[in-house]
Amino acid sequence: MTARGFERSEYEGRLARAQALMDAAGLGALLLTTEPEIRYFTGFLTRFWESPSRPWFLIVPASGQPVAVIPSIGAALMAKTWISDIRTWPAPRPEDDGISLLAATLDEVADGPVGIPSGPETFLRMPQADFARFQAKTARSLRDDAGITAQLRAVKSDVEIAKIGHACEIAARAFARVPEIAAPGVPLSRVFRGFQALLLDEGADWVPYLAGGAGPLGYADVISPADDTPLARGDVLMLDTGAVWDGYFCDYDRNFAIGAPDPRVSASHTRLIEAAQAGLEAARPGAMACDVHRAMADICGAGEGAGRLGHGLGMQLTEGLSLTAQDRTELVPGMVITLEPGIDTADGCILVHEENIVIRPGRAEILSPWADALPVLD
Amino acid sequence: MTARGFERSEYEGRLARAQALMDAAGLGALLLTTEPEIRYFTGFLTRFWESPSRPWFLIVPASGQPVAVIPSIGAALMAKTWISDIRTWPAPRPEDDGISLLAATLDEVADGPVGIPSGPETFLRMPQADFARFQAKTARSLRDDAGITAQLRAVKSDVEIAKIGHACEIAARAFARVPEIAAPGVPLSRVFRGFQALLLDEGADWVPYLAGGAGPLGYADVISPADDTPLARGDVLMLDTGAVWDGYFCDYDRNFAIGAPDPRVSASHTRLIEAAQAGLEAARPGAMACDVHRAMADICGAGEGAGRLGHGLGMQLTEGLSLTAQDRTELVPGMVITLEPGIDTADGCILVHEENIVIRPGRAEILSPWADALPVLD
Repeated sequence: MTARGFERSEYEGRLARAQALMDAAGLGALLLTTEPEIRYFTGFLTRFWESPSRPWFLIVPASGQPVAVIPSIGAALMAKTWISDIRTWPAPRPEDDGISLLAATLDEVADGPVGIPSGPETFLRMPQADFARFQAKTARSLRDDAGITAQLRAVKSDVEIAKIGHACEIAARAFARVPEIAAPGVPLSRVFRGFQALLLDEGADWVPYLAGGAGPLGYADVISPADDTPLARGDVLMLDTGAVWDGYFCDYDRNFAIGAPDPRVSASHTRLIEAAQAGLEAARPGAMACDVHRAMADICGAGEGAGRLGHGLGMQLTEGLSLTAQDRTELVPGMVITLEPGIDTADGCILVHEENIVIRPGRAEILSPWADALPVLD
Repeated sequence: MTARGFERSEYEGRLARAQALMDAAGLGALLLTTEPEIRYFTGFLTRFWESPSRPWFLIVPASGQPVAVIPSIGAALMAKTWISDIRTWPAPRPEDDGISLLAATLDEVADGPVGIPSGPETFLRMPQADFARFQAKTARSLRDDAGITAQLRAVKSDVEIAKIGHACEIAARAFARVPEIAAPGVPLSRVFRGFQALLLDEGADWVPYLAGGAGPLGYADVISPADDTPLARGDVLMLDTGAVWDGYFCDYDRNFAIGAPDPRVSASHTRLIEAAQAGLEAARPGAMACDVHRAMADICGAGEGAGRLGHGLGMQLTEGLSLTAQDRTELVPGMVITLEPGIDTADGCILVHEENIVIRPGRAEILSPWADALPVLD
């Protein structure tokens, strides 16, 4: 049984690594505003981020402990983490929504320029008008965080990997039970609701992501919600989930034939498994993201023109590197990634397959677990 | 049966109202980057926003139709909406993640300064480094959107209200079935998983939010995830959900006594229902948010010092006005709000109760539906 939470040493290690990188980058502090960034350094885990009404801040100084500058509604939960310096204001307070408290705290604890995550996949979770007010108030200069936060998060500890693996196992058990909820005549929307319930029943804490589709030769995209169209014999059904356990995601899919599949679907599915296998073989320390992409794209038949065929995975559904022809990120042990090859089966119709792996010395370790033949539901 | 989606006229009305306000504010276009803002004008509904890897843009020009500037992965789904001008790039492409396409499109379709939502509850969903690049590329001047987007979204159409009402009914049926999943000895984490499954079984598309707590005299906060502590006789259990149907939220809670409740809990619960009733009576057109707050705070015993006792509700779990002592927003028919009074029952322990209503001429209409006596589970 994987335990919830982390030992204090996990957070101390993250902080020490961040401070070493801040020292090298000449930064006096990091200023963080988003859920995964703040949780990475604190363990603060709540679904309350769904509410846009309040900004939250964490200051990670170049030396010393992180300081949380947060709405008072979060004080009790933050006090359960390892963070001891917690400063609050009664948010929402539009005329000063933590801005003066944040500026005063930052000026107190940061000695030098302050890095804010500003690169790919980041955003600043506070109103732009408030950010302008904050810039006018703080005595510190603000700049990019030099990618420190993203760099640290890209390589997972073994306890993080265990949580992702646990989420993958939950999804594996739910995928094995899809015959309970999907059959010819069942509306896709009911399949989606049923699959989420299976994930919860198998132990997911929550299900932030489910997409998929169904059609004779595949589906138009991999991001659509369900409609009420009933499954029909001859369809291929795809379910792609990001289920969460203790704050960590799995992200993989499975295809199912509804009745006997079209031979083109069977052949494409076999090709996708082969592509994922090639990706698995290529995903070794020292290889680059683009190498793994090419290994899969060559088999899928799209070559360099293939889009993103996988990505990093962890506290977010997608994070970090992209398996594209352009991404030259070097793989290192501890990176958790998805392999997500796709094939165009017909005009406007695709088939995709996805697995989750972790980079290890030598061959990668499979987390999802690996799919084989296309299951038939009838 | 409430229908999914909206007629085209719903979007045409939103666009016409936005363009009238843009004209008055001297804006040549709105530039939108977040899920609810883009969905409000397009109907683009997907859970793919869970992935932070790609920015999405919508330009709403002062005249003419909206233009979507989006990653190619979204083209098929966006083409199902009423939007016809869809421009794509192969994201993620870190070296130019839609920035040059966005700047060129904006310069083409916007005649005048461009408004970006920058006030309370907004954020800019793109990397700050990309925003700086975009500012350098566009010939248009950028400014605040004068609150236009928030102002429009605050007042719901009857078809929007029907969707929120539908989500409320789903939650009502799930709350009625809580005795199936909660009893003395059941871990809170299992109750949370089971309640989400009930919401799905009753028709929720997905469950983006569930919080709650349990303890003899209440709970420490209303934002915590569940732990594995078993429910015990004498606890009061609270479940607070934001369940979604067709992109619209409910947001209300229910309390349950696990075995016979402490008399202080029963009395507090009765008081909370009275407070919500006072809020309901006060929530009439022409009243201000602070008036509704005071009506409830007076009964809860906290007076002016009480925190936020409710908020707007719709495409997001919380949006728009706050029921605080400071918020002077005037209530108008069509605003959907929560009434969320709270009481301190003991040191560090609270009891909260929440209902959803819509402002109507005269007395507000109840959507949640209204709770009465504290149910006992044994």
